[in-house]
Amino acid sequence: MPEPEREPEREDSAYVLDQKTVGRIMYAVDIGDQAMLWQELEPFHPADIADLLEQINSFDRRRLIELYGHEFDGDVLTELDETIREEVISILAPEVLTNAVRDLESDDVVDLVEDMEESRAAEILGVLEDSDRTLVQQSLSYPEYSAGRLMQREVVMAPEHWNVGEAIDYLRNQDDLPDQFYHIVLVDPRLKPVGNVTLGKLMASRREVMLSSIVEETFHVIPAEQYEGDVAYAFNQYHLISAPVVDEDERLVGVITIDDAMAVLDEEHEEDILRLAGVSEEGSLSDRVISTTKRRFPWLAVNLVTAILASLVIAQFEAAIAQIVALAVLMPIVASMGGNAGTQSLTVAVRAIATKDLTGSNVWRFIRREVLVGLVNGIIFAVVMGIVGVLWFGGPELGYVIGAAMVINLVMAGLAGTVIPVVLDRVGVDPALASGAFVTTVTDVVGFFAFLGLAAVVLL
Amino acid sequence: MPEPEREPEREDSAYVLDQKTVGRIMYAVDIGDQAMLWQELEPFHPADIADLLEQINSFDRRRLIELYGHEFDGDVLTELDETIREEVISILAPEVLTNAVRDLESDDVVDLVEDMEESRAAEILGVLEDSDRTLVQQSLSYPEYSAGRLMQREVVMAPEHWNVGEAIDYLRNQDDLPDQFYHIVLVDPRLKPVGNVTLGKLMASRREVMLSSIVEETFHVIPAEQYEGDVAYAFNQYHLISAPVVDEDERLVGVITIDDAMAVLDEEHEEDILRLAGVSEEGSLSDRVISTTKRRFPWLAVNLVTAILASLVIAQFEAAIAQIVALAVLMPIVASMGGNAGTQSLTVAVRAIATKDLTGSNVWRFIRREVLVGLVNGIIFAVVMGIVGVLWFGGPELGYVIGAAMVINLVMAGLAGTVIPVVLDRVGVDPALASGAFVTTVTDVVGFFAFLGLAAVVLL
Repeated sequence: MPEPEREPEREDSAYVLDQKTVGRIMYAVDIGDQAMLWQELEPFHPADIADLLEQINSFDRRRLIELYGHEFDGDVLTELDETIREEVISILAPEVLTNAVRDLESDDVVDLVEDMEESRAAEILGVLEDSDRTLVQQSLSYPEYSAGRLMQREVVMAPEHWNVGEAIDYLRNQDDLPDQFYHIVLVDPRLKPVGNVTLGKLMASRREVMLSSIVEETFHVIPAEQYEGDVAYAFNQYHLISAPVVDEDERLVGVITIDDAMAVLDEEHEEDILRLAGVSEEGSLSDRVISTTKRRFPWLAVNLVTAILASLVIAQFEAAIAQIVALAVLMPIVASMGGNAGTQSLTVAVRAIATKDLTGSNVWRFIRREVLVGLVNGIIFAVVMGIVGVLWFGGPELGYVIGAAMVINLVMAGLAGTVIPVVLDRVGVDPALASGAFVTTVTDVVGFFAFLGLAAVVLL
Repeated sequence: MPEPEREPEREDSAYVLDQKTVGRIMYAVDIGDQAMLWQELEPFHPADIADLLEQINSFDRRRLIELYGHEFDGDVLTELDETIREEVISILAPEVLTNAVRDLESDDVVDLVEDMEESRAAEILGVLEDSDRTLVQQSLSYPEYSAGRLMQREVVMAPEHWNVGEAIDYLRNQDDLPDQFYHIVLVDPRLKPVGNVTLGKLMASRREVMLSSIVEETFHVIPAEQYEGDVAYAFNQYHLISAPVVDEDERLVGVITIDDAMAVLDEEHEEDILRLAGVSEEGSLSDRVISTTKRRFPWLAVNLVTAILASLVIAQFEAAIAQIVALAVLMPIVASMGGNAGTQSLTVAVRAIATKDLTGSNVWRFIRREVLVGLVNGIIFAVVMGIVGVLWFGGPELGYVIGAAMVINLVMAGLAGTVIPVVLDRVGVDPALASGAFVTTVTDVVGFFAFLGLAAVVLL
């Protein structure tokens, strides 16, 4: 299609608390003006207030929360990054915390207490009413990162034999419907979910129509023990808006809505992107130097070991380097190109595994393609580097050697960049976490060995 | 909280077409058994059938689609990866294509035709009914990647002065309500949206209650020209389910629902993760060798230039290397550690910029933290490598040199890994796309220069 001339602006400031606003808010805190603070914060969504608390330092955080007082909304706690949530909770006055927690839905309370120490969690659960506490504790009995932890317990259901009129009358006589619900879940007499009816369809149908005749075409039931990442995948794949959750007896125990699935998808992506770069996923921007250092350290330590391995390969060719110093000058180029090509293949593979696009039925075709891509790019860069080698150091032999090493290393990069993540996934290790170290070790070792080894044979 | 002992299984096969099923489907195609093919494909969602078409090769794809015939569902086209969508469309019989396209919602047709050549797009638009074609063409008049392209035109709205009873009667008398809708958008007389009422709230309220008194607390209006990534961010940040879209006169022109926003979020992540690895984002697993090679090439070419830059630095110290070959053995370690540390800082920065967590108000604190993390890790690895250097090559001087170079390079990694993406973002370049090359150039050049330079001064 012809493109209109205008291009949409990426407005980076579209939803950010700008520095001016933050300045005014902190001014209110500085002069201790509670009315001004309330007025400044009033237009903001709890998610924005949580962002603000994450962006300021811990000294300002304490002063702001203390001045904010009883206006503090429980939803801010839900939105806060886990790393500073406990800090914020410890600052809140007991009656503020009680009110904040009582306002939350069951799934948000679960999210709040699941990572806390037991005594602190008991304190939070203690402020809930008995019936709510039971719901939360039932959710907590499911494994971490499971659908059971993610679901909300408040479900609107109807027997499968009802008609539209009965459902409408039932809904209109309820006085504690959940804030947000989009479907009525039809259940059989054993509480097994058998279909979803959207509220829109309900409104549009005549009273005598059977609910079972207007169920959604796409209906997806989620086992409470299912891994939350698979839940998010199902929502994204099948465009679900809400889905019933069942226990091992296939009985309805809760419902998951798409906004929670979207948050999980976002976290999964964050985990993948950070793991690929060798950063453990639990950090946040508000972490301190010491905890950040600890989180970065393990991957750097692994990298040191692999770098030393590569150096050991170089050490085998000290004699060759001593004779032709140009080898030392050129050898990092071969390793670096291999590392980059390997990372390309690896990232495509990790991403395809995560989106379930790479499966048993196309894995060989994928590996073959990546190896061929390595071969073609290898040949192109071999020619380029061959010419560079000749021009720089004179004599064609060095050009032949670096060209051949380039081809070998880019083919290996394609092979390692695909086979390693696929194998790791098969044996149950997250390929995003561990592939990088393996792949660059292969490309470094092969790169140095091929280049220096060929040089030793051809040039000496 | 105490952890239950069970851990949820990451069932990788949870939503994948397993090899056995694919085998049965392809068997039906091989023997040309249409009834069997229909029966095998019947239980699958269009998204799964699209995945299947992406996973098999283009020869099988043609045979399967031809045998599938008029059972082919338009939604499969929507779900297909863009790279093979045109291929599939060209295989479909004209009457199958017509039926498939007529079944789609306006936003799906927009998605289908926006990347097509004009003649092909005109062909698709030609099969639509006049009123639908107008809606699609209006959407296409908005820029690519804008909210206007993403929205569906079918909106359920009501005047702001209506009460619940009037709204219910109106809905029950409509006979062409959209398949999926979750809110009634309240509009003023100039068609400006003023609030959202959820269907659940409508059902639960008495007939005489004014709609304007039961609007949602969180209400977010999206300009049609807004960048789709910002739309997805707003849905995720504010837990929106649907949001009205307005034109430049603030008049309601459509509505975006969370499932479309979730798909955009997913694409944005894919783009980020692939760009960080130097893979341009438009590919798919079903691409051929030649197009994949072309897409991987530019980044490798950039990397070659930066690698040669680093080699030029090494070349300045040929004399030193000729005297002490151990320098050639050890120098890649310093560069490699710097590259890894820089990638860690860079990835955290890119991610924080994308999630709008890194803003003007905390950027200096972030840069300071990353530099300090580089310093602390630098000192630790300096001690380790110092000892390794002494043990491996004897004599403490080489240990001092590699230790000092390590500290210098990891501090530079922290600095470059944060400042470069922040500056790129400020000048309007996607930091995910370009930061990697800059950061590793800095850590390579600084790493080699610091190590070899110090060695030349101290050891010779």
